[in-house]
Amino acid sequence: MDQPIRIAIAGHGNLGRGVEAALAKNPDMQLVGLYTRRAPERITPLQAGTPVYAMGALHGHTDQIDVLILCGGSKTDLPQQGPALAALFNTVDSFDTHACIPEYFAAVDAPARAHGKTALISAGWDPGMFSVQRVMGEALLPDGATYTFWGKGLSQGHSDAIRRISGVAAGVQYTIPVPEAVEQVRSGTRPVLSTRQKHRRECFVVLQTGADPGTVRRAIVTMPHYFDEYDTQVHFITHEELRRDHSAMPHGGFVIRSGNTTPENGQVIEYGLTLDSNPEFTASVLVAYARAVYRLHQQGQYGAKTVLDVAPGLLSPHSPEHLRAHAL
Amino acid sequence: MDQPIRIAIAGHGNLGRGVEAALAKNPDMQLVGLYTRRAPERITPLQAGTPVYAMGALHGHTDQIDVLILCGGSKTDLPQQGPALAALFNTVDSFDTHACIPEYFAAVDAPARAHGKTALISAGWDPGMFSVQRVMGEALLPDGATYTFWGKGLSQGHSDAIRRISGVAAGVQYTIPVPEAVEQVRSGTRPVLSTRQKHRRECFVVLQTGADPGTVRRAIVTMPHYFDEYDTQVHFITHEELRRDHSAMPHGGFVIRSGNTTPENGQVIEYGLTLDSNPEFTASVLVAYARAVYRLHQQGQYGAKTVLDVAPGLLSPHSPEHLRAHAL
Repeated sequence: MDQPIRIAIAGHGNLGRGVEAALAKNPDMQLVGLYTRRAPERITPLQAGTPVYAMGALHGHTDQIDVLILCGGSKTDLPQQGPALAALFNTVDSFDTHACIPEYFAAVDAPARAHGKTALISAGWDPGMFSVQRVMGEALLPDGATYTFWGKGLSQGHSDAIRRISGVAAGVQYTIPVPEAVEQVRSGTRPVLSTRQKHRRECFVVLQTGADPGTVRRAIVTMPHYFDEYDTQVHFITHEELRRDHSAMPHGGFVIRSGNTTPENGQVIEYGLTLDSNPEFTASVLVAYARAVYRLHQQGQYGAKTVLDVAPGLLSPHSPEHLRAHAL
Repeated sequence: MDQPIRIAIAGHGNLGRGVEAALAKNPDMQLVGLYTRRAPERITPLQAGTPVYAMGALHGHTDQIDVLILCGGSKTDLPQQGPALAALFNTVDSFDTHACIPEYFAAVDAPARAHGKTALISAGWDPGMFSVQRVMGEALLPDGATYTFWGKGLSQGHSDAIRRISGVAAGVQYTIPVPEAVEQVRSGTRPVLSTRQKHRRECFVVLQTGADPGTVRRAIVTMPHYFDEYDTQVHFITHEELRRDHSAMPHGGFVIRSGNTTPENGQVIEYGLTLDSNPEFTASVLVAYARAVYRLHQQGQYGAKTVLDVAPGLLSPHSPEHLRAHAL
């Protein structure tokens, strides 16, 4: 067997822990280090024996890591780390601020090219797997419409928004596709759907002592962008109920492309994810793309890449011959 | 705008006609010729003005065609045409005899490489889109199981098998996934399913005058490989009912990958197709891959390729910049 691909993880939150778990399922890769901004001695790696370093140690380890998986957040971590680390390492990240992707791509592309590195940005499931399906669906059925539904799942951004409201002690928000809308789209009729018609929102909120439920409810359902365009339900629960019933991070959704090849023949493509753990699945995607990044770098394909640039076969541990014989 | 990609079609059955329809929806491609083994004057192209030639004329047209789409059958046409034409043209085909793909790949690869051509084999939906999903699903969830269900849809091979039975004047066969099996797989329990548990078969048969229904039914349901391992229903109908109710060619199915990222967290990926017309959808896939073949050839990537070698972005008429900004 070939030498395993040497993988390192930068950042040890939910996503970083998911990458540790995913690497344990991929024997052609080896976790050579966890890098953290916290005190390394306070980190407990999943596998005893995994070295833990301070983030600053990365600069001295450039010849020991084949691919560095960046597990920081899109808001403040990646905009700084992505470009800086792409000058030193082949990288994979899950940058997911859709509107800023072109700018982030350019910021990562320049240092990666200048230093002969390969940096795959915005992997995960949306952006990521869903992007692949959107692009393929539109290419296969150019006369058609694409619909993306999210959920049922816990939205981190919306949960954060709730928790910033005065009177809220804790809370989570679930995004839920409206079944009637999904059925209409599946039928191939290409409906025009408003934001409200596609998804609804459900919040489970723990109030601070003395806070007024009516005031908090109003503050949530009228919040611009986050809630005002949706039908939103607010449930008040206890800290204990929150811990007991809402600690998991399920998510998912589907991409549907509906189109016509001739006026009489409609065709529907649907890709769906049902995820018990959003961060663990995202981590699994990052790990598969780390394998592809390693191979692209070996081929001399430097610079920033996205999931749209990666052939499916590059994600697999198996050889092209094996895949043609067994999976095609 | 760039010059359109010059596409030609070899073979004018259901698939060739589907390619004509698909090309009409892709303005970056131009249909420059239909090549047929029948008398060209008996072919009516979809767009008046499309030149129709005898198959033998292809040899003189090598500098007029960017990509030739082979629309012959996998049994006798492609094994001969694929290797021969890959020496002269960039090609795309839908070779779908799964067990023979490695051999066919090798037979096409050698002449394509020797003559600097790019030949994509086995496009369509299975092999094709389903293969992409199988490979990606296994790479994302290595600890898991993959299930492919076909239908509800009309199976050409099984319909042909029925029609060869003595006493049968005409008939069609539908492959139907068993709903209980699908639900079990979707639930993430990774069931072990027998052939009989996954699909059932339904036949609509027109008897020849004087044929005995019981004898024909027994001959169908006991036919080795085709029917003996399935629960099969046989309905006897008239020629008129067959024409009225069973002339369409719907098909579809789904690929489900179910796996665990940790013992407590299961993840399910599902890709499904609901197709009013099997040949028209297959044709749409061939056309999107023709665009990719044109680009791979421009990049100097010669030889045989499969859908597993093609990055999603290469299928799209849009630029990488456009896709990053709008579809990622």
